[in-house]
Amino acid sequence: MLMIPEIASIADEALSARLQRRIDSKTKPLGALGRLETLAHRIGTILGTEEPVLHEPQVLVCAADHGLAAKGVSAYPSDVTWQMVENFLAGGAAVSVLARQNGLALTVADCGVAREIPLREHKQGAPRLVSCRVAAGTQDASAGPAMTMVQCEQAIANGRQLVRDMPGNALLLGEMGIGNTSVASLLLARLGGVSLAECTGAGTGLNAAGVARKLQILETALRANVDATAPLQALAALGGFEVAALTGAVLEAAVQRRVIVVDGFITTAAVLVASRLQPAVLERCVFAHRSGEPGHTHMLRLLQGEALLDMGLRLGEGSGAALAWPLLESACVILREMASFESAGVDGSNPA
Amino acid sequence: MLMIPEIASIADEALSARLQRRIDSKTKPLGALGRLETLAHRIGTILGTEEPVLHEPQVLVCAADHGLAAKGVSAYPSDVTWQMVENFLAGGAAVSVLARQNGLALTVADCGVAREIPLREHKQGAPRLVSCRVAAGTQDASAGPAMTMVQCEQAIANGRQLVRDMPGNALLLGEMGIGNTSVASLLLARLGGVSLAECTGAGTGLNAAGVARKLQILETALRANVDATAPLQALAALGGFEVAALTGAVLEAAVQRRVIVVDGFITTAAVLVASRLQPAVLERCVFAHRSGEPGHTHMLRLLQGEALLDMGLRLGEGSGAALAWPLLESACVILREMASFESAGVDGSNPA
Repeated sequence: MLMIPEIASIADEALSARLQRRIDSKTKPLGALGRLETLAHRIGTILGTEEPVLHEPQVLVCAADHGLAAKGVSAYPSDVTWQMVENFLAGGAAVSVLARQNGLALTVADCGVAREIPLREHKQGAPRLVSCRVAAGTQDASAGPAMTMVQCEQAIANGRQLVRDMPGNALLLGEMGIGNTSVASLLLARLGGVSLAECTGAGTGLNAAGVARKLQILETALRANVDATAPLQALAALGGFEVAALTGAVLEAAVQRRVIVVDGFITTAAVLVASRLQPAVLERCVFAHRSGEPGHTHMLRLLQGEALLDMGLRLGEGSGAALAWPLLESACVILREMASFESAGVDGSNPA
Repeated sequence: MLMIPEIASIADEALSARLQRRIDSKTKPLGALGRLETLAHRIGTILGTEEPVLHEPQVLVCAADHGLAAKGVSAYPSDVTWQMVENFLAGGAAVSVLARQNGLALTVADCGVAREIPLREHKQGAPRLVSCRVAAGTQDASAGPAMTMVQCEQAIANGRQLVRDMPGNALLLGEMGIGNTSVASLLLARLGGVSLAECTGAGTGLNAAGVARKLQILETALRANVDATAPLQALAALGGFEVAALTGAVLEAAVQRRVIVVDGFITTAAVLVASRLQPAVLERCVFAHRSGEPGHTHMLRLLQGEALLDMGLRLGEGSGAALAWPLLESACVILREMASFESAGVDGSNPA
């Protein structure tokens, strides 16, 4: 009983004009805050106000394992997935420290990690673990579908429920899953019509021979799932419980008009799938950074997404989203707190 | 009695190796945090520690007026300089709200604004005004030197004193002065050997005809000061009390091994002058952003500076430095708080 919600456009000409007038009335030359102005306009549009306040921002890190990993598509073994989940929860991972720095709540969801992560008592303010396991990792996509359609629908429904259970009006997307750059590459190739060679990169650090081997395995996976061309079918066949859960999370956050802060290559793959189901999800997205993983540039182009940061990050976890977060806060304070030419008594107001 | 301090190199091979080992031991693939790692290494080097803590960061906005402005090099009148200083102090300007958001102390220095800014009582936590006026604006550089050498030396000494009077180990550079993109263009052309056409942009928003007119005026200014080729002579001749004060501030901050966060085109011009006097100042600099003003790209290339943000900002004030500040904090928490593979019990440690 999968429900893909209808996502209506939030385009609002009157609000858009009011937001632009407000931005242009601020004490600065027209356009002088560059893409911070575009960001302010977008956040105002999503939250439906000229004075946006971001509250209780949530980082959601979806974790899962991949049958494909056993084929050697990653520089790291699958065990690193659960070990890194423990690291997230213990507060030692990049996303943990960046979330703490920026006052972001961190939830890690076990969406299907091979080794089940034991639930534990949650301490106020610490990262939280939730369990919505569909299975102990997906099947090997190079030998057939990674998930059944029922599993895929369950993972999407889980992602929607995760967001419904969270407070706040901003969702930062993160992920963990050894092998999941392969999933993102496959989805980009299948849904974006980009050649697999252009979609495939070094992931966590393969050498050239490793990338060549990964490319071969991914070609096999595309051939093994040649009929899975529709977005949901492609998602199920090419896999990723965490990517499916993130797809659901994106859909639900879009329904609720939360600001969706997209991290790197893998979370953008979830946005790609969600946007093929409901294009208006893109109106709610802010792309935090352009990843060093080459396929991400193709994805951003397909989604007409302009990333805030371009620092060669390729870690995932939601680390780029957490790093970029203060820029969203800045965009809001510019709208809310900056003086206008009139209120400040400054000459040379911009033309209306 | 000008003193240009000797700035020694802070290069330290042993510390550099320890910093790199520490970064590489963190739970992430080698290099996966991209330029955040480079930033962490730089801050660690400046502060001389593997566990850097930034404390009491100070935004210093130097303000002054320019004789050249009367020739029509800016879209705004000179009166906007003092009006914007009042706006900084009242908390309504971009740099004011961004400094407040990020916990940065804000000091505005009247280095030679045409209309003297009245001093007032300082309220704890609010922006502070200090006065170190050399004169009520510079002379018209298109008719001869903008400052005498004595004035230039005084402004540099003032900038050094401003920093000596400030706490903290990080200095964020800002400026205000109608006409000062012209000063930056002139200094870039003279000291950088870049053609004036490539150095000259729209500033606060000139149209094409305005830029053409500005270029003509700047050509006249270069011709009127043809012998001013050494860094200090060029600074005096081509002007800017605020640029000279910032040059002094950069030198003093470098002596004290503070982290110097450079904003856009005008503050980078001060770094250009300072680096021609004492090249090792560059080791202490972090370039916050690449400005939309085209000459800034040339400056960054000359200084081999890689900017953190590239968002098309062209406002000045220190707004880009304040906006980028949380990235510096992130670089520090990555160094201080991220777990190592060993401490977190994660497999697949990176090669040493």
